[in-house]
Amino acid sequence: MTFFHHLPSVAQLHDLAKDSIDLTKEGVLTAKRIDNMMLEALGLKLFYATEKVSEKNISVLCQLAEETQAVKKMTDMQNGQIVNFIEGFSIENRPAMHTAVRDFFEQCNTSLEAKQATGLGYKELEKLRSFLDEMEKKSQITTVIQIGIGGSHLGPEAIYLALEAFHKLDRKVYFLSNIDPDEGARIFQQVDLEKTLVVVVSKSGTTLETMTNERFAREKFKQAGLTTKNHFIAVTGKGSPMDNKERYMDCFYIWNYIGGRYSVTSMVGAFILAFALGMDRFLDFLKGANAMDKIALRSDPYANLPLMSALLGIWNRNFLGFPTVAIVPYSQALSRFPAHLQQLDMESNGKSIDKAGHFVEYDTGPIIWGEPGTNSQHSFFQSVHQGTTVVPIEFIGFKESQYKEDVFYQQTTSQEKLLANLFAQSIALAVGQKSDNPNTFFPGNRPNRILLADKLDPFTIGAILAFYEHKVVFQGFIWNINSFDQEGVQLGKNLASKILEQFSLQRQGRSMDTKGFPLGVAYLEHLSFGS
Amino acid sequence: MTFFHHLPSVAQLHDLAKDSIDLTKEGVLTAKRIDNMMLEALGLKLFYATEKVSEKNISVLCQLAEETQAVKKMTDMQNGQIVNFIEGFSIENRPAMHTAVRDFFEQCNTSLEAKQATGLGYKELEKLRSFLDEMEKKSQITTVIQIGIGGSHLGPEAIYLALEAFHKLDRKVYFLSNIDPDEGARIFQQVDLEKTLVVVVSKSGTTLETMTNERFAREKFKQAGLTTKNHFIAVTGKGSPMDNKERYMDCFYIWNYIGGRYSVTSMVGAFILAFALGMDRFLDFLKGANAMDKIALRSDPYANLPLMSALLGIWNRNFLGFPTVAIVPYSQALSRFPAHLQQLDMESNGKSIDKAGHFVEYDTGPIIWGEPGTNSQHSFFQSVHQGTTVVPIEFIGFKESQYKEDVFYQQTTSQEKLLANLFAQSIALAVGQKSDNPNTFFPGNRPNRILLADKLDPFTIGAILAFYEHKVVFQGFIWNINSFDQEGVQLGKNLASKILEQFSLQRQGRSMDTKGFPLGVAYLEHLSFGS
Repeated sequence: MTFFHHLPSVAQLHDLAKDSIDLTKEGVLTAKRIDNMMLEALGLKLFYATEKVSEKNISVLCQLAEETQAVKKMTDMQNGQIVNFIEGFSIENRPAMHTAVRDFFEQCNTSLEAKQATGLGYKELEKLRSFLDEMEKKSQITTVIQIGIGGSHLGPEAIYLALEAFHKLDRKVYFLSNIDPDEGARIFQQVDLEKTLVVVVSKSGTTLETMTNERFAREKFKQAGLTTKNHFIAVTGKGSPMDNKERYMDCFYIWNYIGGRYSVTSMVGAFILAFALGMDRFLDFLKGANAMDKIALRSDPYANLPLMSALLGIWNRNFLGFPTVAIVPYSQALSRFPAHLQQLDMESNGKSIDKAGHFVEYDTGPIIWGEPGTNSQHSFFQSVHQGTTVVPIEFIGFKESQYKEDVFYQQTTSQEKLLANLFAQSIALAVGQKSDNPNTFFPGNRPNRILLADKLDPFTIGAILAFYEHKVVFQGFIWNINSFDQEGVQLGKNLASKILEQFSLQRQGRSMDTKGFPLGVAYLEHLSFGS
Repeated sequence: MTFFHHLPSVAQLHDLAKDSIDLTKEGVLTAKRIDNMMLEALGLKLFYATEKVSEKNISVLCQLAEETQAVKKMTDMQNGQIVNFIEGFSIENRPAMHTAVRDFFEQCNTSLEAKQATGLGYKELEKLRSFLDEMEKKSQITTVIQIGIGGSHLGPEAIYLALEAFHKLDRKVYFLSNIDPDEGARIFQQVDLEKTLVVVVSKSGTTLETMTNERFAREKFKQAGLTTKNHFIAVTGKGSPMDNKERYMDCFYIWNYIGGRYSVTSMVGAFILAFALGMDRFLDFLKGANAMDKIALRSDPYANLPLMSALLGIWNRNFLGFPTVAIVPYSQALSRFPAHLQQLDMESNGKSIDKAGHFVEYDTGPIIWGEPGTNSQHSFFQSVHQGTTVVPIEFIGFKESQYKEDVFYQQTTSQEKLLANLFAQSIALAVGQKSDNPNTFFPGNRPNRILLADKLDPFTIGAILAFYEHKVVFQGFIWNINSFDQEGVQLGKNLASKILEQFSLQRQGRSMDTKGFPLGVAYLEHLSFGS
């Protein structure tokens, strides 16, 4: 494998970047360019006329995809080959099979590994369907609290909110993730325990936050005189400490070949989403994701939306040098989708070594952040238009609303106002505005793209979720980094346990061990506020 | 006024930055350094031992504050002098008097302008107190929906969530901001209209999103056969189209000398917060903010927490070159506080011209983003520890929980686990970890600081809010930019109206005006999804 920075296409792209296209120039951004620079699949349209790219750029970016065998690696991943590894160092060494557990619709993958994972996943779905059918018949459960953190929280919550318009009206869901005890206290103030199920999600069955919050929750049920076993469900790895039918009403399984941030379409998201939306809508969601998985296997980048998006991102990151990407959905239902993508992208590609164990000499995953529009127009868009740091933006929009309730005001509907603002921002960022008054001067030439769909429904959000999963993975393949581990979270955990030992010593009335971890002790000694 | 980049301290700081301190070196980060590099006021402790600064750096940064007369300008601002201006260009030309409306506790400002603004603000508070007293006696209102966007949404919502633990149990609040019609539909599904008041907040009385959502809301009340006037309250500028007692049950006033992003402590936040928390707690919140306003007037940076924080931010931004800042509160109640600070900071300081109308030759406001811990540890912290882009972090933490409910698990409480993780992350980012396995190597030397308080209560969040307001304003003073206008939001608005005209033409059955705005029309023509 040649290093990224030694690839022929990379040298060419650096040259092209010296003289990249200027979107503010007369005749550059035209209606024709908007029509031409558009990819379409599954009812999704990806517009990239407002990126700082020429057709020539794109063709060299496609060459980069070739040289790094991006699509072959995607195929390998979906076939269940080992992609989670660093050569010469013992780490997880696993396949990444999040696509397999949703691969039971059309043109199913025929590799042995993938088929096996699909079979196992499907069995859990069937189990879940029976469980929920049974539950509807026999019990009065109206509320589910999911206890889980990271991938067991952000993805399921983002998708739940995205589809809240479709949820069963008599059902409520909550997510308890943070170790902050106030979060649990706040949630349990609001629920009727007798009608509540708690779904505890942890692959290892040992995640500290999740185990602690489970204890907190179980105490609530005990205090209310309820049998905890009848209210607790486990979603965990087979054989984990949580795989225990003595303690849980039922156990649903997840496997170590599905990373937390890629796990929304596994049992991690399945229980709470199928409970809230119904199993059929959950299956539509999987169907959308699965359909995008197939698109990601197309060798032609012009037909492969996530690959094209990955390449545009690499152009902005490695050649134009932009450190961040803002995700701005023009849909309030996607309010937490940027937080999920932040995790997905930054935990996958926030790495500094390549798969051969060398420190990289180029930038990898950018900082991902964002908030919905039009709200963000009244917030950080001042900086996006006139600040000194250029922010590439990925807009997401929908032609139709979800609830179909609207208001006609000043000649247009709210949905039209929403769309008009989305397109206007994209154009304004690209073309800017000349002015003699420096305060009303907009430099323009600020890159952005738009992912547009008909309507935010289960199938579509499944497709959009997988679009982003594959965009991230393609970038990892092209940078030759491992997008599937997360060693970077370990050091903080280790130091936290050392500080917890000090708290424990204090509780026992013993003095803290200054020698063991003086820095931690220094902070703890400042915890006296005269109280 | 000398340009920022020509100041003697700036040249010196650039020199110092070439050889900035390495926090990973043996003996650099010590317990003593943690003790020494700490500022304290109002029960808040600001720890900055984990920033990449030496005592020498700090003293030159203090010199920078001197050279730019930062504290004098803060005094001028609080005295009601005109700070919102660009020399030679006709813009808003106003004072910025958000501190005045909360200045009725101790050591009140005696300048004529400030006293007048305080008087006017206090009168509205008194009016509000009577209104709420009356409401409690006479009506059955349990729910308030605030319609407003930007500053009329993000700040009040962030503070409401921060203090939800203190809210009156029988009261519910909602925020309707986005033009997205689904947001209104979702909220109105949940409320009992007869028991609901709608507070419409817009200084100009013309904000498109707010006016549209008000119309949407009024139609709901009409459909339910209710008299809208009895359910709608205006918070607006005197004489605006919304200042109309025929249409509103009552009108509360705000003034053009308080910018939206600085308006939480004005009537913009007052109605909904006093309704939810009670007037006394709202006043405690103002008291905390007011107390921090006085701290911000101290000429000694070592006693002036927001000034010190501003200087550290400038060190990271202009001299070490870091493009973003993550705000990470270890408190789930502060889940939306980063979104408020993102607006506050990026709308204030995302500017490219100085107050003399020259394009700046240095970076101004960074990209602000963030999510609560410990959640973010399971999300973007992988990148923060091992990614290729360094992210300075501002941690916020509290010794005690709000609800005082906790669980004892594995020898410690959740609150202790929360704090242990906060301190551990701060230390881990600074010191890193050496390792022969490149995958478990942490470079460290990643700057961060901690703002620590006893408990998240009304007074404390008031002080923290004002701490950030003044940090942002100090940075604006030092960069010599105008932190109080937002011209950057205009261009998008103008282009959006052009696209709305096209929607309107379509509705009338007329063809779109391709010549008028071809780019907008190009997108609209793509809105056909075969539906």
